[in-house]
Amino acid sequence: MTEPTTAPPLSSTSRTSLGRKKDRAATDRADLHDVLDGALICHLGLVLDGHPQVLPTGYGRDGEVLYLHGSTGARSVLAAGAEPEVCVTVTLLDAVVYSRTLNDHSMNYRSAVIYGRPRAVLDPAEKLHGLRVLSEHLAPGSWDHAREPDAKELAAVAVLALPLAEASVKIRSGPPTDDPAEHATGAWAGVLPFRTEWGTPIPAPDLAPGIPTPPHIADRRTPHD
Amino acid sequence: MTEPTTAPPLSSTSRTSLGRKKDRAATDRADLHDVLDGALICHLGLVLDGHPQVLPTGYGRDGEVLYLHGSTGARSVLAAGAEPEVCVTVTLLDAVVYSRTLNDHSMNYRSAVIYGRPRAVLDPAEKLHGLRVLSEHLAPGSWDHAREPDAKELAAVAVLALPLAEASVKIRSGPPTDDPAEHATGAWAGVLPFRTEWGTPIPAPDLAPGIPTPPHIADRRTPHD
Repeated sequence: MTEPTTAPPLSSTSRTSLGRKKDRAATDRADLHDVLDGALICHLGLVLDGHPQVLPTGYGRDGEVLYLHGSTGARSVLAAGAEPEVCVTVTLLDAVVYSRTLNDHSMNYRSAVIYGRPRAVLDPAEKLHGLRVLSEHLAPGSWDHAREPDAKELAAVAVLALPLAEASVKIRSGPPTDDPAEHATGAWAGVLPFRTEWGTPIPAPDLAPGIPTPPHIADRRTPHD
Repeated sequence: MTEPTTAPPLSSTSRTSLGRKKDRAATDRADLHDVLDGALICHLGLVLDGHPQVLPTGYGRDGEVLYLHGSTGARSVLAAGAEPEVCVTVTLLDAVVYSRTLNDHSMNYRSAVIYGRPRAVLDPAEKLHGLRVLSEHLAPGSWDHAREPDAKELAAVAVLALPLAEASVKIRSGPPTDDPAEHATGAWAGVLPFRTEWGTPIPAPDLAPGIPTPPHIADRRTPHD
Protein backbone atom coordinates (compact mmCIF):
# COMPACT_ATOMS: atom_id res chain seq x y z
CA MET A 1 0.00 0.00 0.00
CA THR A 2 1.32 3.42 -0.94
CA GLU A 3 1.22 5.89 1.91
CA PRO A 4 1.26 9.62 1.32
CA THR A 5 4.10 11.10 3.32
CA THR A 6 1.82 13.73 4.80
CA ALA A 7 -1.17 11.64 5.90
CA PRO A 8 -3.32 13.90 8.06
CA PRO A 9 -4.45 12.74 11.51
CA LEU A 10 -7.94 11.32 11.79
CA SER A 11 -10.66 13.89 11.48
CA SER A 12 -12.46 15.24 14.50
CA THR A 13 -15.91 16.15 13.29
CA SER A 14 -18.61 15.80 15.92
CA ARG A 15 -19.72 12.40 14.73
CA THR A 16 -16.23 10.97 14.65
CA SER A 17 -15.54 12.23 18.18
CA LEU A 18 -16.82 9.55 20.51
CA GLY A 19 -19.53 10.61 22.90
CA ARG A 20 -18.97 7.62 25.17
CA LYS A 21 -15.91 5.60 26.14
CA LYS A 22 -13.59 8.30 24.90
CA ASP A 23 -10.63 6.28 26.17
CA ARG A 24 -11.38 3.82 23.40
CA ALA A 25 -10.89 6.36 20.63
CA ALA A 26 -7.74 5.97 18.56
CA THR A 27 -6.55 9.05 16.77
CA ASP A 28 -3.61 7.70 14.83
CA ARG A 29 -4.18 7.14 11.12
CA ALA A 30 -2.06 4.00 11.37
CA ASP A 31 -4.75 2.49 13.62
CA LEU A 32 -7.33 3.12 10.90
CA HIS A 33 -5.10 1.41 8.35
CA ASP A 34 -4.50 -1.54 10.68
CA VAL A 35 -8.22 -2.15 11.15
CA LEU A 36 -8.93 -1.86 7.42
CA ASP A 37 -6.03 -4.09 6.47
CA GLY A 38 -6.87 -6.67 9.12
CA ALA A 39 -10.47 -7.42 8.13
CA LEU A 40 -11.85 -9.01 4.98
CA ILE A 41 -15.26 -7.38 4.61
CA CYS A 42 -16.95 -4.15 5.59
CA HIS A 43 -20.56 -3.31 6.35
CA LEU A 44 -21.74 -0.58 4.01
CA GLY A 45 -24.61 1.57 5.22
CA LEU A 46 -26.69 3.97 3.20
CA VAL A 47 -30.12 5.50 3.02
CA LEU A 48 -32.15 3.90 0.24
CA ASP A 49 -35.58 5.39 -0.43
CA GLY A 50 -35.45 6.85 3.06
CA HIS A 51 -34.71 3.52 4.72
CA PRO A 52 -31.45 2.46 6.35
CA GLN A 53 -29.68 -0.35 4.55
CA VAL A 54 -26.58 -2.27 5.65
CA LEU A 55 -24.84 -4.73 3.35
CA PRO A 56 -21.68 -6.77 3.77
CA THR A 57 -19.29 -6.19 0.91
CA GLY A 58 -15.66 -6.48 -0.08
CA TYR A 59 -13.18 -3.63 -0.11
CA GLY A 60 -9.53 -2.82 -0.52
CA ARG A 61 -7.37 0.06 0.64
CA ASP A 62 -4.83 1.97 -1.40
CA GLY A 63 -3.24 4.64 0.74
CA GLU A 64 -6.04 7.00 1.75
CA VAL A 65 -8.66 5.60 -0.64
CA LEU A 66 -11.03 2.73 0.05
CA TYR A 67 -12.24 0.89 -3.04
CA LEU A 68 -15.63 -0.76 -2.67
CA HIS A 69 -16.62 -3.79 -4.56
CA GLY A 70 -18.57 -3.99 -7.73
CA SER A 71 -21.29 -6.39 -6.60
CA THR A 72 -24.27 -5.91 -4.31
CA GLY A 73 -22.82 -3.11 -2.25
CA ALA A 74 -21.71 -0.86 -5.05
CA ARG A 75 -24.92 -1.43 -6.98
CA SER A 76 -27.00 -0.38 -3.98
CA VAL A 77 -24.95 2.77 -3.67
CA LEU A 78 -25.36 3.55 -7.35
CA ALA A 79 -29.10 2.86 -7.05
CA ALA A 80 -29.26 5.51 -4.33
CA GLY A 81 -28.21 8.19 -6.82
CA ALA A 82 -25.15 10.30 -7.55
CA GLU A 83 -22.54 10.12 -4.79
CA PRO A 84 -24.91 9.37 -1.91
CA GLU A 85 -23.60 9.52 1.62
CA VAL A 86 -22.44 6.20 3.03
CA CYS A 87 -21.11 4.90 6.31
CA VAL A 88 -18.58 2.08 6.04
CA THR A 89 -17.88 0.12 9.21
CA VAL A 90 -15.18 -2.50 9.67
CA THR A 91 -15.01 -4.52 12.87
CA LEU A 92 -12.42 -6.96 14.19
CA LEU A 93 -13.41 -8.97 17.22
CA ASP A 94 -10.45 -9.89 19.42
CA ALA A 95 -11.85 -11.39 22.63
CA VAL A 96 -14.78 -11.73 24.97
CA VAL A 97 -14.08 -9.97 28.26
CA TYR A 98 -15.40 -11.87 31.28
CA SER A 99 -15.87 -9.66 34.29
CA ARG A 100 -17.00 -10.45 37.83
CA THR A 101 -20.26 -8.68 37.04
CA LEU A 102 -22.58 -9.17 34.07
CA ASN A 103 -22.77 -5.43 33.72
CA ASP A 104 -19.04 -5.15 32.98
CA HIS A 105 -18.83 -8.02 30.50
CA SER A 106 -17.47 -6.65 27.25
CA MET A 107 -15.62 -7.42 24.06
CA ASN A 108 -12.13 -6.55 22.94
CA TYR A 109 -12.42 -5.25 19.43
CA ARG A 110 -11.09 -2.79 16.90
CA SER A 111 -13.57 -0.95 14.72
CA ALA A 112 -13.38 1.78 12.13
CA VAL A 113 -16.23 3.95 10.87
CA ILE A 114 -15.79 5.98 7.70
CA TYR A 115 -18.26 8.56 6.42
CA GLY A 116 -18.26 9.98 2.96
CA ARG A 117 -19.65 10.12 -0.54
CA PRO A 118 -18.08 7.47 -2.74
CA ARG A 119 -17.28 8.28 -6.33
CA ALA A 120 -18.10 5.80 -9.09
CA VAL A 121 -14.85 4.87 -10.80
CA LEU A 122 -15.46 5.17 -14.54
CA ASP A 123 -12.01 5.52 -16.06
CA PRO A 124 -11.02 2.01 -17.29
CA ALA A 125 -7.43 2.28 -16.06
CA GLU A 126 -8.48 3.42 -12.59
CA LYS A 127 -11.22 0.78 -12.54
CA LEU A 128 -8.68 -1.92 -13.30
CA HIS A 129 -6.45 -0.49 -10.55
CA GLY A 130 -9.35 -0.47 -8.09
CA LEU A 131 -10.20 -4.06 -8.95
CA ARG A 132 -6.59 -5.04 -8.41
CA VAL A 133 -6.61 -3.37 -4.98
CA LEU A 134 -9.86 -5.19 -4.14
CA SER A 135 -8.45 -8.47 -5.39
CA GLU A 136 -5.20 -8.14 -3.46
CA HIS A 137 -7.25 -7.59 -0.31
CA LEU A 138 -9.60 -10.54 -0.81
CA ALA A 139 -7.16 -12.94 -2.37
CA PRO A 140 -3.55 -11.73 -2.34
CA GLY A 141 -1.60 -13.18 -5.23
CA SER A 142 -4.63 -14.02 -7.37
CA TRP A 143 -4.14 -11.07 -9.68
CA ASP A 144 -0.95 -12.61 -11.01
CA HIS A 145 -2.34 -16.15 -11.04
CA ALA A 146 -5.90 -16.08 -12.41
CA ARG A 147 -7.15 -14.48 -15.63
CA GLU A 148 -7.52 -10.72 -15.42
CA PRO A 149 -10.87 -9.09 -16.22
CA ASP A 150 -11.47 -8.61 -19.94
CA ALA A 151 -13.07 -5.51 -21.42
CA LYS A 152 -16.59 -6.91 -21.16
CA GLU A 153 -16.16 -7.92 -17.52
CA LEU A 154 -14.58 -4.58 -16.73
CA ALA A 155 -17.53 -2.74 -18.26
CA ALA A 156 -20.05 -4.82 -16.31
CA VAL A 157 -18.56 -4.31 -12.88
CA ALA A 158 -19.03 -1.30 -10.59
CA VAL A 159 -16.19 0.09 -8.49
CA LEU A 160 -16.50 2.91 -5.99
CA ALA A 161 -13.76 5.03 -4.42
CA LEU A 162 -14.24 6.47 -0.92
CA PRO A 163 -11.60 8.81 0.52
CA LEU A 164 -10.54 8.08 4.10
CA ALA A 165 -11.24 11.69 5.01
CA GLU A 166 -13.76 11.47 7.86
CA ALA A 167 -13.20 8.44 10.04
CA SER A 168 -13.05 7.24 13.59
CA VAL A 169 -11.42 4.23 15.20
CA LYS A 170 -12.47 2.63 18.43
CA ILE A 171 -10.36 0.04 20.24
CA ARG A 172 -10.94 -1.88 23.45
CA SER A 173 -8.16 -4.15 24.63
CA GLY A 174 -6.86 -5.66 27.82
CA PRO A 175 -8.42 -7.31 30.87
CA PRO A 176 -11.71 -6.50 32.58
CA THR A 177 -11.58 -3.57 34.95
CA ASP A 178 -13.74 -4.60 37.85
CA ASP A 179 -14.14 -2.47 40.92
CA PRO A 180 -12.07 -4.17 43.66
CA ALA A 181 -15.28 -4.40 45.71
CA GLU A 182 -16.49 -6.99 43.19
CA HIS A 183 -13.53 -9.31 43.72
CA ALA A 184 -15.28 -10.89 46.70
CA THR A 185 -17.75 -12.58 44.36
CA GLY A 186 -15.10 -15.16 43.60
CA ALA A 187 -16.13 -15.16 39.93
CA TRP A 188 -13.50 -15.76 37.27
CA ALA A 189 -12.33 -12.70 35.36
CA GLY A 190 -10.22 -12.47 32.25
CA VAL A 191 -10.41 -12.58 28.49
CA LEU A 192 -11.12 -15.38 26.04
CA PRO A 193 -9.32 -14.56 22.77
CA PHE A 194 -11.30 -14.87 19.56
CA ARG A 195 -9.20 -15.73 16.52
CA THR A 196 -9.62 -16.27 12.83
CA GLU A 197 -7.61 -18.71 10.79
CA TRP A 198 -7.46 -20.21 7.34
CA GLY A 199 -8.30 -23.87 6.94
CA THR A 200 -6.96 -26.38 4.44
CA PRO A 201 -7.56 -25.42 0.78
CA ILE A 202 -10.24 -27.51 -0.94
CA PRO A 203 -9.60 -27.94 -4.69
CA ALA A 204 -12.63 -27.53 -6.97
CA PRO A 205 -14.16 -30.85 -8.06
CA ASP A 206 -13.44 -29.94 -11.68
CA LEU A 207 -9.80 -28.98 -11.10
CA ALA A 208 -7.57 -30.88 -13.49
CA PRO A 209 -5.25 -33.41 -11.83
CA GLY A 210 -1.69 -32.21 -11.35
CA ILE A 211 -2.45 -28.56 -10.61
CA PRO A 212 -0.89 -27.94 -7.18
CA THR A 213 -2.27 -25.43 -4.69
CA PRO A 214 -0.08 -22.35 -5.25
CA PRO A 215 1.84 -20.92 -2.26
CA HIS A 216 -0.19 -17.69 -2.16
CA ILE A 217 -3.20 -19.83 -1.21
CA ALA A 218 -1.60 -22.77 0.64
CA ASP A 219 0.53 -20.49 2.81
CA ARG A 220 -1.94 -17.66 3.29
CA ARG A 221 -1.72 -16.15 6.72
CA THR A 222 -4.14 -13.92 8.56
CA PRO A 223 -2.90 -10.35 8.93
CA HIS A 224 -0.73 -9.74 12.00
CA ASP A 225 0.16 -13.42 12.34
CA MET B 1 -34.00 -20.66 22.44
CA THR B 2 -37.77 -21.00 22.52
CA GLU B 3 -39.24 -21.51 19.07
CA PRO B 4 -42.87 -20.76 18.35
CA THR B 5 -44.47 -23.80 16.83
CA THR B 6 -45.91 -21.73 14.02
CA ALA B 7 -42.91 -19.66 12.94
CA PRO B 8 -43.85 -18.02 9.66
CA PRO B 9 -41.59 -18.33 6.62
CA LEU B 10 -39.28 -15.44 5.90
CA SER B 11 -41.07 -12.40 4.57
CA SER B 12 -41.04 -11.52 0.91
CA THR B 13 -41.28 -7.76 0.78
CA SER B 14 -39.55 -6.18 -2.20
CA ARG B 15 -36.44 -5.28 -0.25
CA THR B 16 -36.06 -8.77 1.22
CA SER B 17 -36.42 -10.38 -2.19
CA LEU B 18 -32.97 -10.42 -3.71
CA GLY B 19 -32.57 -8.49 -6.93
CA ARG B 20 -29.37 -10.29 -7.87
CA LYS B 21 -28.03 -13.77 -7.23
CA LYS B 22 -31.48 -15.08 -6.40
CA ASP B 23 -30.00 -18.57 -6.08
CA ARG B 24 -28.29 -17.33 -2.93
CA ALA B 25 -31.53 -16.45 -1.15
CA ALA B 26 -32.57 -18.75 1.69
CA THR B 27 -36.24 -18.76 2.58
CA ASP B 28 -36.27 -21.05 5.58
CA ARG B 29 -36.62 -19.38 8.95
CA ALA B 30 -34.17 -21.93 10.36
CA ASP B 31 -31.47 -20.43 8.12
CA LEU B 32 -32.12 -17.02 9.68
CA HIS B 33 -31.80 -18.50 13.15
CA ASP B 34 -28.60 -20.33 12.22
CA VAL B 35 -26.94 -17.14 11.00
CA LEU B 36 -28.03 -15.17 14.06
CA ASP B 37 -26.98 -17.89 16.47
CA GLY B 38 -23.65 -18.43 14.72
CA ALA B 39 -22.27 -14.89 14.91
CA LEU B 40 -21.29 -12.79 17.90
CA ILE B 41 -22.01 -9.25 16.76
CA CYS B 42 -24.30 -7.49 14.34
CA HIS B 43 -23.96 -4.26 12.40
CA LEU B 44 -26.80 -1.94 13.26
CA GLY B 45 -27.72 0.67 10.66
CA LEU B 46 -29.96 3.64 11.12
CA VAL B 47 -30.53 7.13 9.83
CA LEU B 48 -29.29 9.69 12.33
CA ASP B 49 -29.97 13.34 11.50
CA GLY B 50 -30.42 12.28 7.91
CA HIS B 51 -27.06 10.50 7.74
CA PRO B 52 -26.48 6.74 7.50
CA GLN B 53 -24.80 5.28 10.56
CA VAL B 54 -23.53 1.73 11.05
CA LEU B 55 -22.33 0.49 14.42
CA PRO B 56 -21.15 -2.92 15.58
CA THR B 57 -23.06 -4.08 18.61
CA GLY B 58 -24.02 -7.15 20.61
CA TYR B 59 -27.31 -8.97 20.32
CA GLY B 60 -29.11 -12.10 21.39
CA ARG B 61 -32.05 -14.03 19.97
CA ASP B 62 -35.05 -15.41 21.86
CA GLY B 63 -37.36 -17.16 19.42
CA GLU B 64 -38.53 -14.51 16.97
CA VAL B 65 -37.18 -11.51 18.89
CA LEU B 66 -33.72 -10.01 18.61
CA TYR B 67 -32.53 -8.13 21.68
CA LEU B 68 -30.03 -5.39 20.99
CA HIS B 69 -27.47 -4.31 23.43
CA GLY B 70 -27.60 -1.46 25.82
CA SER B 71 -24.40 0.26 24.86
CA THR B 72 -23.44 2.34 21.86
CA GLY B 73 -25.88 0.78 19.43
CA ALA B 74 -28.99 1.05 21.49
CA ARG B 75 -28.17 4.57 22.58
CA SER B 76 -27.79 5.67 18.98
CA VAL B 77 -31.16 4.17 18.18
CA LEU B 78 -32.75 5.91 21.13
CA ALA B 79 -31.08 9.17 20.08
CA ALA B 80 -32.76 8.81 16.69
CA GLY B 81 -36.19 9.11 18.31
CA ALA B 82 -39.13 6.87 19.09
CA GLU B 83 -38.91 3.49 17.38
CA PRO B 84 -36.82 4.60 14.39
CA GLU B 85 -36.34 2.21 11.52
CA VAL B 86 -33.19 0.14 11.66
CA CYS B 87 -31.43 -2.41 9.51
CA VAL B 88 -29.55 -5.12 11.38
CA THR B 89 -27.05 -7.16 9.38
CA VAL B 90 -25.20 -10.24 10.59
CA THR B 91 -22.50 -11.80 8.44
CA LEU B 92 -20.57 -15.04 8.76
CA LEU B 93 -17.62 -15.46 6.44
CA ASP B 94 -16.93 -19.09 5.57
CA ALA B 95 -14.32 -19.11 2.80
CA VAL B 96 -12.61 -17.24 0.01
CA VAL B 97 -13.54 -18.72 -3.36
CA TYR B 98 -10.63 -18.83 -5.80
CA SER B 99 -11.75 -19.05 -9.39
CA ARG B 100 -9.78 -19.35 -12.65
CA THR B 101 -10.79 -15.76 -13.39
CA LEU B 102 -10.53 -12.70 -11.18
CA ASN B 103 -14.05 -11.79 -12.17
CA ASP B 104 -15.47 -14.93 -10.56
CA HIS B 105 -13.52 -14.75 -7.32
CA SER B 106 -16.02 -14.70 -4.49
CA MET B 107 -16.65 -15.47 -0.86
CA ASN B 108 -18.66 -18.19 0.80
CA TYR B 109 -20.75 -16.52 3.46
CA ARG B 110 -24.07 -16.52 5.25
CA SER B 111 -25.69 -13.17 5.92
CA ALA B 112 -28.97 -12.04 7.41
CA VAL B 113 -30.58 -8.63 7.03
CA ILE B 114 -33.45 -7.64 9.32
CA TYR B 115 -35.53 -4.51 8.92
CA GLY B 116 -37.81 -3.11 11.60
CA ARG B 117 -38.51 -0.61 14.32
CA PRO B 118 -37.04 -1.76 17.62
CA ARG B 119 -38.97 -1.14 20.80
CA ALA B 120 -37.18 0.16 23.90
CA VAL B 121 -37.63 -2.44 26.63
CA LEU B 122 -38.75 -0.56 29.73
CA ASP B 123 -40.38 -3.18 31.93
CA PRO B 124 -37.71 -4.24 34.47
CA ALA B 125 -38.58 -7.94 34.25
CA GLU B 126 -38.40 -7.98 30.46
CA LYS B 127 -35.25 -5.88 30.55
CA LEU B 128 -33.61 -8.42 32.84
CA HIS B 129 -34.77 -11.17 30.50
CA GLY B 130 -33.37 -9.32 27.48
CA LEU B 131 -30.05 -8.82 29.23
CA ARG B 132 -29.93 -12.51 30.06
CA VAL B 133 -30.55 -13.38 26.40
CA LEU B 134 -27.79 -10.95 25.38
CA SER B 135 -25.47 -12.37 28.01
CA GLU B 136 -26.10 -15.98 27.02
CA HIS B 137 -25.23 -15.05 23.44
CA LEU B 138 -22.01 -13.18 24.24
CA ALA B 139 -20.85 -15.31 27.14
CA PRO B 140 -22.89 -18.47 27.66
CA GLY B 141 -22.84 -19.54 31.29
CA SER B 142 -21.84 -16.16 32.68
CA TRP B 143 -25.35 -15.34 33.90
CA ASP B 144 -25.10 -18.09 36.49
CA HIS B 145 -21.46 -17.36 37.33
CA ALA B 146 -20.97 -13.60 37.59
CA ARG B 147 -22.98 -11.09 39.60
CA GLU B 148 -26.34 -10.21 38.04
CA PRO B 149 -27.17 -6.56 37.33
CA ASP B 150 -28.48 -4.67 40.34
CA ALA B 151 -31.34 -2.17 40.19
CA LYS B 152 -29.05 0.77 39.47
CA GLU B 153 -27.22 -1.02 36.65
CA LEU B 154 -30.53 -2.21 35.23
CA ALA B 155 -31.87 1.33 35.18
CA ALA B 156 -28.76 2.66 33.46
CA VAL B 157 -28.70 0.19 30.59
CA ALA B 158 -30.75 0.36 27.39
CA VAL B 159 -32.22 -2.76 25.79
CA LEU B 160 -34.10 -2.87 22.50
CA ALA B 161 -36.35 -5.59 21.12
CA LEU B 162 -36.61 -6.10 17.36
CA PRO B 163 -39.07 -8.66 15.97
CA LEU B 164 -37.73 -10.96 13.27
CA ALA B 165 -40.64 -10.03 11.04
CA GLU B 166 -39.01 -8.69 7.87
CA ALA B 167 -35.77 -10.43 7.09
CA SER B 168 -33.73 -11.95 4.32
CA VAL B 169 -30.93 -14.49 4.33
CA LYS B 170 -28.28 -14.87 1.69
CA ILE B 171 -25.96 -17.84 1.49
CA ARG B 172 -23.15 -18.71 -0.89
CA SER B 173 -21.47 -22.06 -0.45
CA GLY B 174 -19.54 -24.58 -2.48
CA PRO B 175 -16.80 -24.42 -5.09
CA PRO B 176 -16.22 -21.82 -7.79
CA THR B 177 -18.35 -22.24 -10.89
CA ASP B 178 -16.04 -21.41 -13.74
CA ASP B 179 -17.07 -21.72 -17.33
CA PRO B 180 -15.28 -24.83 -18.68
CA ALA B 181 -13.69 -22.59 -21.31
CA GLU B 182 -11.65 -21.03 -18.49
CA HIS B 183 -10.13 -24.33 -17.38
CA ALA B 184 -7.41 -23.94 -20.04
CA THR B 185 -5.84 -21.14 -18.00
CA GLY B 186 -4.34 -23.80 -15.74
CA ALA B 187 -5.06 -21.60 -12.71
CA TRP B 188 -5.90 -23.24 -9.38
CA ALA B 189 -9.55 -23.20 -8.39
CA GLY B 190 -11.16 -24.06 -5.08
CA VAL B 191 -12.02 -22.62 -1.71
CA LEU B 192 -9.90 -21.60 1.26
CA PRO B 193 -12.00 -22.04 4.42
CA PHE B 194 -12.08 -19.18 6.90
CA ARG B 195 -12.63 -20.22 10.49
CA THR B 196 -13.01 -18.68 13.89
CA GLU B 197 -11.81 -20.24 17.10
CA TRP B 198 -11.40 -19.46 20.74
CA GLY B 199 -7.89 -19.13 22.10
CA THR B 200 -6.58 -19.93 25.58
CA PRO B 201 -8.30 -17.99 28.38
CA ILE B 202 -6.15 -15.27 29.93
CA PRO B 203 -6.92 -14.67 33.62
CA ALA B 204 -7.14 -11.02 34.71
CA PRO B 205 -3.94 -9.77 36.41
CA ASP B 206 -5.94 -9.07 39.55
CA LEU B 207 -7.62 -12.50 39.69
CA ALA B 208 -7.08 -14.06 43.11
CA PRO B 209 -4.88 -17.19 43.09
CA GLY B 210 -6.78 -20.45 43.20
CA ILE B 211 -9.78 -19.39 41.10
CA PRO B 212 -9.83 -21.90 38.22
CA THR B 213 -11.14 -21.07 34.74
CA PRO B 214 -14.71 -22.41 34.80
CA PRO B 215 -15.73 -24.96 32.15
CA HIS B 216 -18.18 -22.60 30.40
CA ILE B 217 -15.16 -20.48 29.47
CA ALA B 218 -12.35 -23.05 29.25
CA ASP B 219 -14.42 -25.41 27.07
CA ARG B 220 -16.28 -22.81 25.02
CA ARG B 221 -16.79 -23.92 21.46
CA THR B 222 -17.74 -21.92 18.42
CA PRO B 223 -21.27 -22.64 17.18
CA HIS B 224 -21.53 -25.61 14.84
CA ASP B 225 -18.31 -27.12 16.14
